Amino acid sequence: MYNKLLVDLIQRALEEDGAYADITTISTVPEEQWSAGHMITRHAGVIAGLNFALEAFRVFDERIHIEQLIKDGSYVQAGTELVYLKGPSRSLLSAERVALNFLGRLSGIATLTNQCVRVLEGKQTRILDTRKTTPGLRELEKMAVRLGGGQNHRFGLSDGVLIKDNHIKAAGGVAQAVTAARQVAPHLMKIEIECETLAEVQVALDAGADAILLDNMDIPAMSHAVEVIHQRDPKVLTEASGNIGTNAEKLVAVAETGVNFISLGALTHSAPNFDISLEFTREA
Amino acid sequence: MYNKLLVDLIQRALEEDGAYADITTISTVPEEQWSAGHMITRHAGVIAGLNFALEAFRVFDERIHIEQLIKDGSYVQAGTELVYLKGPSRSLLSAERVALNFLGRLSGIATLTNQCVRVLEGKQTRILDTRKTTPGLRELEKMAVRLGGGQNHRFGLSDGVLIKDNHIKAAGGVAQAVTAARQVAPHLMKIEIECETLAEVQVALDAGADAILLDNMDIPAMSHAVEVIHQRDPKVLTEASGNIGTNAEKLVAVAETGVNFISLGALTHSAPNFDISLEFTREA
Amino acid sequence: MYNKLLVDLIQRALEEDGAYADITTISTVPEEQWSAGHMITRHAGVIAGLNFALEAFRVFDERIHIEQLIKDGSYVQAGTELVYLKGPSRSLLSAERVALNFLGRLSGIATLTNQCVRVLEGKQTRILDTRKTTPGLRELEKMAVRLGGGQNHRFGLSDGVLIKDNHIKAAGGVAQAVTAARQVAPHLMKIEIECETLAEVQVALDAGADAILLDNMDIPAMSHAVEVIHQRDPKVLTEASGNIGTNAEKLVAVAETGVNFISLGALTHSAPNFDISLEFTREA
Amino acid sequence: MYNKLLVDLIQRALEEDGAYADITTISTVPEEQWSAGHMITRHAGVIAGLNFALEAFRVFDERIHIEQLIKDGSYVQAGTELVYLKGPSRSLLSAERVALNFLGRLSGIATLTNQCVRVLEGKQTRILDTRKTTPGLRELEKMAVRLGGGQNHRFGLSDGVLIKDNHIKAAGGVAQAVTAARQVAPHLMKIEIECETLAEVQVALDAGADAILLDNMDIPAMSHAVEVIHQRDPKVLTEASGNIGTNAEKLVAVAETGVNFISLGALTHSAPNFDISLEFTREA
Amino acid sequence: MYNKLLVDLIQRALEEDGAYADITTISTVPEEQWSAGHMITRHAGVIAGLNFALEAFRVFDERIHIEQLIKDGSYVQAGTELVYLKGPSRSLLSAERVALNFLGRLSGIATLTNQCVRVLEGKQTRILDTRKTTPGLRELEKMAVRLGGGQNHRFGLSDGVLIKDNHIKAAGGVAQAVTAARQVAPHLMKIEIECETLAEVQVALDAGADAILLDNMDIPAMSHAVEVIHQRDPKVLTEASGNIGTNAEKLVAVAETGVNFISLGALTHSAPNFDISLEFTREA
Amino acid sequence: MYNKLLVDLIQRALEEDGAYADITTISTVPEEQWSAGHMITRHAGVIAGLNFALEAFRVFDERIHIEQLIKDGSYVQAGTELVYLKGPSRSLLSAERVALNFLGRLSGIATLTNQCVRVLEGKQTRILDTRKTTPGLRELEKMAVRLGGGQNHRFGLSDGVLIKDNHIKAAGGVAQAVTAARQVAPHLMKIEIECETLAEVQVALDAGADAILLDNMDIPAMSHAVEVIHQRDPKVLTEASGNIGTNAEKLVAVAETGVNFISLGALTHSAPNFDISLEFTREA
Repeated sequence: MYNKLLVDLIQRALEEDGAYADITTISTVPEEQWSAGHMITRHAGVIAGLNFALEAFRVFDERIHIEQLIKDGSYVQAGTELVYLKGPSRSLLSAERVALNFLGRLSGIATLTNQCVRVLEGKQTRILDTRKTTPGLRELEKMAVRLGGGQNHRFGLSDGVLIKDNHIKAAGGVAQAVTAARQVAPHLMKIEIECETLAEVQVALDAGADAILLDNMDIPAMSHAVEVIHQRDPKVLTEASGNIGTNAEKLVAVAETGVNFISLGALTHSAPNFDISLEFTREA
Repeated sequence: MYNKLLVDLIQRALEEDGAYADITTISTVPEEQWSAGHMITRHAGVIAGLNFALEAFRVFDERIHIEQLIKDGSYVQAGTELVYLKGPSRSLLSAERVALNFLGRLSGIATLTNQCVRVLEGKQTRILDTRKTTPGLRELEKMAVRLGGGQNHRFGLSDGVLIKDNHIKAAGGVAQAVTAARQVAPHLMKIEIECETLAEVQVALDAGADAILLDNMDIPAMSHAVEVIHQRDPKVLTEASGNIGTNAEKLVAVAETGVNFISLGALTHSAPNFDISLEFTREA
Repeated sequence: MYNKLLVDLIQRALEEDGAYADITTISTVPEEQWSAGHMITRHAGVIAGLNFALEAFRVFDERIHIEQLIKDGSYVQAGTELVYLKGPSRSLLSAERVALNFLGRLSGIATLTNQCVRVLEGKQTRILDTRKTTPGLRELEKMAVRLGGGQNHRFGLSDGVLIKDNHIKAAGGVAQAVTAARQVAPHLMKIEIECETLAEVQVALDAGADAILLDNMDIPAMSHAVEVIHQRDPKVLTEASGNIGTNAEKLVAVAETGVNFISLGALTHSAPNFDISLEFTREA
Repeated sequence: MYNKLLVDLIQRALEEDGAYADITTISTVPEEQWSAGHMITRHAGVIAGLNFALEAFRVFDERIHIEQLIKDGSYVQAGTELVYLKGPSRSLLSAERVALNFLGRLSGIATLTNQCVRVLEGKQTRILDTRKTTPGLRELEKMAVRLGGGQNHRFGLSDGVLIKDNHIKAAGGVAQAVTAARQVAPHLMKIEIECETLAEVQVALDAGADAILLDNMDIPAMSHAVEVIHQRDPKVLTEASGNIGTNAEKLVAVAETGVNFISLGALTHSAPNFDISLEFTREA
Repeated sequence: MYNKLLVDLIQRALEEDGAYADITTISTVPEEQWSAGHMITRHAGVIAGLNFALEAFRVFDERIHIEQLIKDGSYVQAGTELVYLKGPSRSLLSAERVALNFLGRLSGIATLTNQCVRVLEGKQTRILDTRKTTPGLRELEKMAVRLGGGQNHRFGLSDGVLIKDNHIKAAGGVAQAVTAARQVAPHLMKIEIECETLAEVQVALDAGADAILLDNMDIPAMSHAVEVIHQRDPKVLTEASGNIGTNAEKLVAVAETGVNFISLGALTHSAPNFDISLEFTREA
Repeated sequence: MYNKLLVDLIQRALEEDGAYADITTISTVPEEQWSAGHMITRHAGVIAGLNFALEAFRVFDERIHIEQLIKDGSYVQAGTELVYLKGPSRSLLSAERVALNFLGRLSGIATLTNQCVRVLEGKQTRILDTRKTTPGLRELEKMAVRLGGGQNHRFGLSDGVLIKDNHIKAAGGVAQAVTAARQVAPHLMKIEIECETLAEVQVALDAGADAILLDNMDIPAMSHAVEVIHQRDPKVLTEASGNIGTNAEKLVAVAETGVNFISLGALTHSAPNFDISLEFTREA
């Protein structure tokens, strides 16, 4: 049930890696040999993309038998066996790197997201991702954020309205921008607008914005803005953004302003790889 | 002169981001308005992928005028203007994120590579990348490594022979594996083999290996192995690999064993994003 | 600035029509002959898709000179010249049908939409489209609806929440469904739910629905429901749906209930073709 | 056995509809719930495209069990159950609209064609389609015409010769056009030419045309032309064309001239949608 | 005006050849160096595919200036300069092989076709190709046949009716097969049927076949069959087929039976390469 | 385990041949009829591409049962049955030509290669292919060469370094070219350089070339060059190239110079088709 774009991504990755002409494997591994493979974590963290990454083996050779031992989104310790594979040794070796490359990146994102989410445990504030994702992998990376406990911001420019400073300038002001967006956007979309000052916040509220992004404010200013907004209309949502990063103390301080959401580009653009290995045993 | 796969990557990224139906921009920015844009670094580092990232603007709207102020591969300070853009405001706003997402990732890789390369300045040892790249972006990420001063290992499984432990087991030993690979591989390919012990190294040399990957050896063992190899035949190349990481001290220690190459997965799988912004000024 | 999927659509249409191997034209029309072509309406109505349809000529032969005399979205009388073309006679003849097939369908949709919109002139109620579009042409058909003066409902299943009867049953009730959707949907999406009775409407309001689709209600029931909803919260949007059709009297009666929107599948699935011809004159 | 272009069409339609990220369904319907679905007609008419439309369910989720109760091309009454489906509720809901969009359009075409064919029952004249089809759907729409009892004209410009007025002008006359086409066209293709007057008909016969399209002639002129042609050579085929429409009386009048074929653009460009619903029952 | 499938073919060929990562050229040829290239024949023959092959240079680098000195379809002597190229040396070197691979194959086909056509000069019999073409290149190879003076048989299975022995068996006889085909085929298609005996020929004529393929008959039998057919109806076309080959004496003998066409698989499946070289001179 | 590009090739070939709309077969062969098919050679030779060609039947109709009686790479006599097929008669007939077109070309290449290889039996010299392959079929044609007993040269420009005369001129000489290539090429690639004189050979050896291509040398010059090279360093490989052709005497003469490899463009660009037929028997 993955869409064609995602299955194509695996195909392209296998072709990019030369997996269909793996000279080393073809020359050194007998065609008829079968092996078992054990996919094992080297860190603790949240596994993401396992269902998807295993498609690399299915797409490459349908004879590979796959036993998935852990569900996507699980938090696991280092040394956990995630998957047991059995199949032609050549196919396991040739498809391995593509599967691990997907899995390492996505689990890295889920793990980093999860660290941020845990920091805010017990608080109302939720962690959001951004559009700062790897080109071609957005759907997967946003899935990894969800599996790590984060929530997705809009998918792209066509499915949500987020008015930024350049839009405000172009429209001639905060009020004009909100009104213009309301007229054109489908009736099921809320209107969010970026504000840098309390004055802008108040104009935005007057214009009927559904959500306000507080950009690059310091903590006291943000606290005050959140209070003003929620007093005026508790349904109006608030989002903190702008180089907040994944530092725990900073996250807590921002969350304590009472904002509904903190959005973090780092979740997807700077998550370190999550290390997983595939260990082989030859079949009798 | 980018190939179709790469241009398609930009197309897919623009579609993935909903850039052709950017509701916020369409509703708030007048169709006839033009702006100028200044792409400016927020860190110091090596710029990579600039030529390519700018294709996002060209592909999206050919009316955008682009002046590239810095060449790919340049080391720049924070606050450097990389590009001056002029064009329809809507198109600049809608294509911006895709361009920056490519540029941030690739410059991140080039900058991390460059840090490692500088650590080894004056030494013979060169930094190599691996196949641990983002699926779909290998060509670009390997280019970023080169721009950072690193050297590329093989592109994929079809254009180089690298015999690993599982291949050795499958072939029945180091000597058998080297011989088997020699018979099948095109005559222009060298044969590299992974060795974990000195004994394996010696068998590999006897079998006529062209290059030896020293995997997960400690520094003294590696030193000794390098010495043995280069005494036997100075043309045989040596590569250190296995969780070496980007720590400067570790890199220096490994390099001082005399190995020809150190390969680092972290260059491509764990490089943090390089932050670049696009600032607009409305045209008169 | 059309995305690749749309340009591909034109390419596929030209190939589907055998335009690159038009035997009749190749055998009867001299290669060097040039003609002028005049695209002329045979009905009155709203023109939609003109920019796009003309791409068929551009894609087929870039030597064709195109003068677009009427803007997309214009209401024109029968006999109006829309476009003046000049180019190699062979290319004009071979690409003609594809251009007219797009233009006839899209202008048919815009014209039907416009008839409905005019019926409601002076009223608050707006005309919406649905997802009942031609597979592969949704983006174009929704554009035609906008050009005819209608407003777009959500583009697809991924960019809006519309809870229908089967979802309600599956979730265990109206309240449960609204709550479940709120937890998962991105924060910028409103929640719309289909209700068939006043009781359901009240539960939906209690659960915090942002919009209510009144499905297959008769006029008095709908009137009452709209009144109840707007008294409770004037921000909650109302939509009438369910075999309303394009009959003017029916549309007026529904609009007079005070609903914000009427959605009509017929706009896109049953609009008759808008007839346009291309008349040639040979160039001196 | 559908070709890749057609299967791709379904894939693209599912992606276009956002079926792989159906937020409403994902949030309100439990993953493990299964349902049964009954596809039921709301009108009487000829069903077309059923085999094909059901591919949408197969492509989306291979676990869906499909029982097709009615064959493509059947004439059915309103309220007929066409298909029984059983599968994961989420998948049935997410793929439903794409299947129905194909089925409604194609059955609409088959039903309209069938109405015209029945009008001419007992007469020799057959109903033909044209190239005025929806871009991308020609193969399917021409299949719908056949299922409704109509006959296909040429598929596109590359597989049949039909000389129209512009070709005649370009070639320098009817005789020259027929001769030129005969020299270039493959030997298995007949040559058809459009004539507007009896004089043209006679030149076309002299030149050896295999078929003559009588364009925009009134009934007496057409009658006379058909008589002249069939007296001269009963193997020469005759086709009536030009805004004939689907009115029964007009069709009968044209058929009574004795023409072999009537071609109708309306079959494919103006057929109203055929309404079919999918009703769900939850599985125990 | 080449269709997307053909331009894609060039793109794929360039990618297949690794032209975008030509290590030898990148490492040895300075980026700023320009060269002139002269494409020169090494044999005499008919040039085919020149327009198309030159697309490889245009697609690869639009800065390459191309002067085509000879028209497609020309008969040239060995040593003739076909094209003068000027552009970046790297691009000329990297795209060269793809261009020559297309040109060599297509000119080989045109040259072999031309040899056969010349053998029959002054006779009525024409040379046809078959469907025995290189997968993916049919359109180009059939163009090469035309440029060599041959005539194309049907393009594929969908644009012509050719009833072979297996169809006859399946249909229950020659008469049944012709009748069945007539009922289903579009009215603009002729019906051709393969006959191996005179008895079959007579049944085919009775059933109204438009063309008869005389398969594997010896010369006297073929002579007799042709005479019988043309006496019965001079409009019925005759084709000789079945391992006739490109031997001149055999071709003449077959032509002297009076058949209208001889079809030859060898034209496309066994034509030897036509040798063309690209010679460089460095630009001042 | 064929990659997507190759499976796409089969899809495109079936669509190119109109196999999904085979009018003759649809009209004359009953839908429910099944047949058996026997694929039989008409020549002796080496079979190549059988696994692949049979994909055409699998892709077209998965109900076709396939029994492969001969392995790819086998040398068979004329009249050998290669495959037994059983399935719907329509599908066997419609997919047949595509399968045979692949098989005929690839077996033709394997057979010609094999003839050359047998000529050199008992000698050290091995037969290499070149990049003179059919665009789009390189992977398959290089596989055919291997199955015929030949060895593959580099796959394309990105996976091997072969410095030719134009590169040497551009680099400023043999030594400069070798050095430049060594600096840029991945460490696992050998450097081969084309030499036309003994003087060039010596410079190349001094510069550390790993392999030397002796281009267009006469036999005595080549003998001398090989001797000089192998005396200097027996590891340096030698290749003869330049219009050598497939004549047995010439091949033997070249091999007797002691060169390691002879590369032959004719293997792939001028191999005649290998004739195979598919004979049907109707199923009871």
